[in-house]
Amino acid sequence: MAHAPVSSSLVCYPLRLGPGEEIKGTLIKFVEDNKLKAAFLLSAVGSVTKATLRMADSSTISTFQGPFEIVSLVGTLSHGGHLHVALSDAEGKMLGGHVIGDMEVYTTAEVVIGECSEAVFRREPDSQTGYDELVVTRKTN
Amino acid sequence: MAHAPVSSSLVCYPLRLGPGEEIKGTLIKFVEDNKLKAAFLLSAVGSVTKATLRMADSSTISTFQGPFEIVSLVGTLSHGGHLHVALSDAEGKMLGGHVIGDMEVYTTAEVVIGECSEAVFRREPDSQTGYDELVVTRKTN
Amino acid sequence: MAHAPVSSSLVCYPLRLGPGEEIKGTLIKFVEDNKLKAAFLLSAVGSVTKATLRMADSSTISTFQGPFEIVSLVGTLSHGGHLHVALSDAEGKMLGGHVIGDMEVYTTAEVVIGECSEAVFRREPDSQTGYDELVVTRKTN
Repeated sequence: MAHAPVSSSLVCYPLRLGPGEEIKGTLIKFVEDNKLKAAFLLSAVGSVTKATLRMADSSTISTFQGPFEIVSLVGTLSHGGHLHVALSDAEGKMLGGHVIGDMEVYTTAEVVIGECSEAVFRREPDSQTGYDELVVTRKTN
Repeated sequence: MAHAPVSSSLVCYPLRLGPGEEIKGTLIKFVEDNKLKAAFLLSAVGSVTKATLRMADSSTISTFQGPFEIVSLVGTLSHGGHLHVALSDAEGKMLGGHVIGDMEVYTTAEVVIGECSEAVFRREPDSQTGYDELVVTRKTN
Repeated sequence: MAHAPVSSSLVCYPLRLGPGEEIKGTLIKFVEDNKLKAAFLLSAVGSVTKATLRMADSSTISTFQGPFEIVSLVGTLSHGGHLHVALSDAEGKMLGGHVIGDMEVYTTAEVVIGECSEAVFRREPDSQTGYDELVVTRKTN
């Protein structure tokens, strides 16, 4: 943690996505349209027909056919987004990974987005990981 | 997302449930007793002796005997409630699904309920899905 | 629920942990350094190289070698901490349990800590469970 801690109040945005809506794209568009600078997922419950996920080896990308229940959907949404999901199938078995996309709603997705009002999320290249990684700063007016 | 976004401040209610308490029923009763109109799960950690879940095929309902660790418990609580859970067993294996009930606490459940102070959750029939689905509106005084 | 409900406003602390940082120890130290009296995990996404977990039988402790994606990391952080995690592996398979430690960040961990500003978490022995269990009280000034 290279930076001093940023404390912030929190605003929430509850919303429902309906059948056929793609979850990752819809949430990122919501955050951009509403100019949320430090948004993340506070809560998500629902179901999807399929999902394209990247596995923990950082390379394998697979598309899984559902329907699946969403039992965990977590991560940050501003400045690109970084989401992980856990899905359960018709036998209760679970799979999980990094969300690439293709998460189309089956019946519903009830989501609450949180926004740290006094913070800003951005991503900067990190030579240690080779990815653009989250940097949190205090919002300046 | 048929409705305009509702932004809201957030109030939280941290609480602990003890051995034998049924989680879904206890949380919904808490929300009703405290007249929370837009409540959802912010956090939950604990263990249960059993759980009755509906699988992702929308029809199979099974009761699983634990003990299980709660590794994810998510969803909305007002106006009926919609909860999904992920449980891990004595070998670390996981199962998940839509919570019907029978989630009796084994040793403890540490829960934080969030309430969107300026929103109201209700459920209305959705002919696309056949379920009563979440509708979010701004609270009017 | 032996105590009257405590309602509280919420302050959030978004932060990023980098490669090699041990997640549980780092978060608990953050909470202690910042004197957060009722802190819990609002959100966590990232990856770890390994994890030592206690299983749901309350006795087996195993160390699992990753890399793993964090698909759920939940629990309370003040006064000792109580965390559960769900991890997914290179095939998308999942395992979960009670976090003992050894959760070293692989590439990143993006975390939002929540603090119930008007509450205090402490732990007291509970003869029913044999553990020190969470007690929530209203903060007094």
